[in-house]
Amino acid sequence: MQGNYRALWLSDAMFDECLEVIDQRQLPFVYDTKYLTNTQEVVNAIKNMTVRGAGVIGSVAAFGIYIAAIEVDGDYEALCEKAVLIRESRPTAVNLMWAVDTMMEHLEGSDDVIEDARAFAIELNDKEAQESKKIAEFGCDIIEDILKKSGKTKINILTHCNAGWLAVIDEGTALAPIYEAKRRGIDVHVWVDETRPRNQGASLTAWELSQSGIDYTIIADNTGGHLMQHGMVDMVIVGADRVSANGDAANKIGTYLKALSAYDNGVPFYVALPMSTFDFEIDEGLKEIPIEQRSADEVVFIKGIDAEGIVREVRITPQDSKALNYGFDVTPARLITGLITNRGVCKADFDEIKEKLRG
Amino acid sequence: MQGNYRALWLSDAMFDECLEVIDQRQLPFVYDTKYLTNTQEVVNAIKNMTVRGAGVIGSVAAFGIYIAAIEVDGDYEALCEKAVLIRESRPTAVNLMWAVDTMMEHLEGSDDVIEDARAFAIELNDKEAQESKKIAEFGCDIIEDILKKSGKTKINILTHCNAGWLAVIDEGTALAPIYEAKRRGIDVHVWVDETRPRNQGASLTAWELSQSGIDYTIIADNTGGHLMQHGMVDMVIVGADRVSANGDAANKIGTYLKALSAYDNGVPFYVALPMSTFDFEIDEGLKEIPIEQRSADEVVFIKGIDAEGIVREVRITPQDSKALNYGFDVTPARLITGLITNRGVCKADFDEIKEKLRG
Repeated sequence: MQGNYRALWLSDAMFDECLEVIDQRQLPFVYDTKYLTNTQEVVNAIKNMTVRGAGVIGSVAAFGIYIAAIEVDGDYEALCEKAVLIRESRPTAVNLMWAVDTMMEHLEGSDDVIEDARAFAIELNDKEAQESKKIAEFGCDIIEDILKKSGKTKINILTHCNAGWLAVIDEGTALAPIYEAKRRGIDVHVWVDETRPRNQGASLTAWELSQSGIDYTIIADNTGGHLMQHGMVDMVIVGADRVSANGDAANKIGTYLKALSAYDNGVPFYVALPMSTFDFEIDEGLKEIPIEQRSADEVVFIKGIDAEGIVREVRITPQDSKALNYGFDVTPARLITGLITNRGVCKADFDEIKEKLRG
Repeated sequence: MQGNYRALWLSDAMFDECLEVIDQRQLPFVYDTKYLTNTQEVVNAIKNMTVRGAGVIGSVAAFGIYIAAIEVDGDYEALCEKAVLIRESRPTAVNLMWAVDTMMEHLEGSDDVIEDARAFAIELNDKEAQESKKIAEFGCDIIEDILKKSGKTKINILTHCNAGWLAVIDEGTALAPIYEAKRRGIDVHVWVDETRPRNQGASLTAWELSQSGIDYTIIADNTGGHLMQHGMVDMVIVGADRVSANGDAANKIGTYLKALSAYDNGVPFYVALPMSTFDFEIDEGLKEIPIEQRSADEVVFIKGIDAEGIVREVRITPQDSKALNYGFDVTPARLITGLITNRGVCKADFDEIKEKLRG
């Protein structure tokens, strides 16, 4: 596998420079990359979830504009048409639209659309990597603090879903402080919620942590409460898909249950996010953030690898059973100990968030 | 399939009368029964989880003594040796030991060990069925009450794991009130937690409810909190493996998280159990009930059926990932709205439980 722990990078393996991405659909069973050499391949990779994770989708879209610019020989008018295709590949992803729009605004009137697209995609990517680095540092300060107060020599952190370098450039949000902890020589162990129904924890987070040399243990989503009751979790860090003005946090379904349990057992519960995840258009997340209902097939079928090394999909319910599948839930601000942002840590509270947004 | 919705029954399919049981390891993919015709087959069926569920294991053990009595031609001394084998087939199951001991005490000095074993096993079984029937009635009174107060025409009940007729004779504990609701003409819908890692909800409860014509929907264990936040759950009913003197309830891992969520959203949370599940030797369940740690393989591997109808086991985590697997957790009494017992409903509280135990 590649050694730089990124979900995507520029490659000169093809005639023109192209984008190389980890095929996340096949993890953790097969490590494979795909070359994205034209607009259609970029669109497909986003659509079929070869790449996923808010930040990574945004980055693929930004570099996708560069790939498309090569394809149309730097013709801005032609590029606009390609940009629409990329922008619409997953219509609900805010980062995707933002990345495409920002790229296209920047390129309007450019003398060298191809070169400018390349430079600006790298710039956007670096900006996000910088945000991740700040989240890592601010989050790790909290880890150090909790470890010091506990009097223990090892810290146990629980996380839900995947908010690491497979999801957000460069080291993710929720996992970034954990990577930083390793660099600072802190003995850290991660409880990885498997995160049904899509199992992003058991597949992506577990794989990512193992690649990064972080000690971890996979648990069923049902297990975290028991661990917290018995002092086996020192803190929880999760990512977020959207945080409203009052500090309510939408994240992967099941996050709310872990927040309840953390609160009930006095375990610090942190949400890590870049400033762009705040949505001040929404006052109260619990009431207003729309929750995506996804295919029941994600509950009914599961993918794994058999004893012969063949990846197979099997049905785990009775035939014709109904299933319901919400992608996210909203954790009320009152259950959140703090928000770890690239501008520092604040309470999940209107005034504190507003102050951070002012910068 | 058999039409009487029981997990086991006497059969004259063989030369001597024998015990026929549903092979629960193959559900929901294959409906198959096994004939238990001698002690070794009874022991194996309990050991390899052909049969599971506290009540059902006890019933199989009681009838197992009858099968063993036929095997030894009614010789009590020889039967004692067989009884030890059955008693030790799953050493931690309280109902199993109780059933074997009760049978053997009853048979001591009997003139017709075989006939008496048959009659007494049926008597014990009927007693348990009677308890299930009382739980059904008391529980259904609560369902009617909640439905009336809600002003709705349909009630949505969430359950975790399997506590129906596949687990406890005759209609289970948590599911018994739901079967009674159907008989009373109440429009009832069940949210079935899939119940990772062994998936007793998605496999056993879903199958059992579909056989019984009850409307249900399978959800990932992560989903219940979101449903409760949005008024989609009117009550929760779960079973219990052990309830301590103060009302703390040990049940399948993940129950505690649903209790927290029910409490947070004002959703009534009930535990259904026969009086025999109370353990007055234990004062505080959360501190004292020992929690079984089971094989990590239950988290790492999952069984399902593929498109060709072949049942396969696949690994769903990266190779060599560590996993941790606790079988149960303890829900503190403060989160429990009430206990539905065969002697009526009471609070999860020392004095009320004591009064019920006095009878």
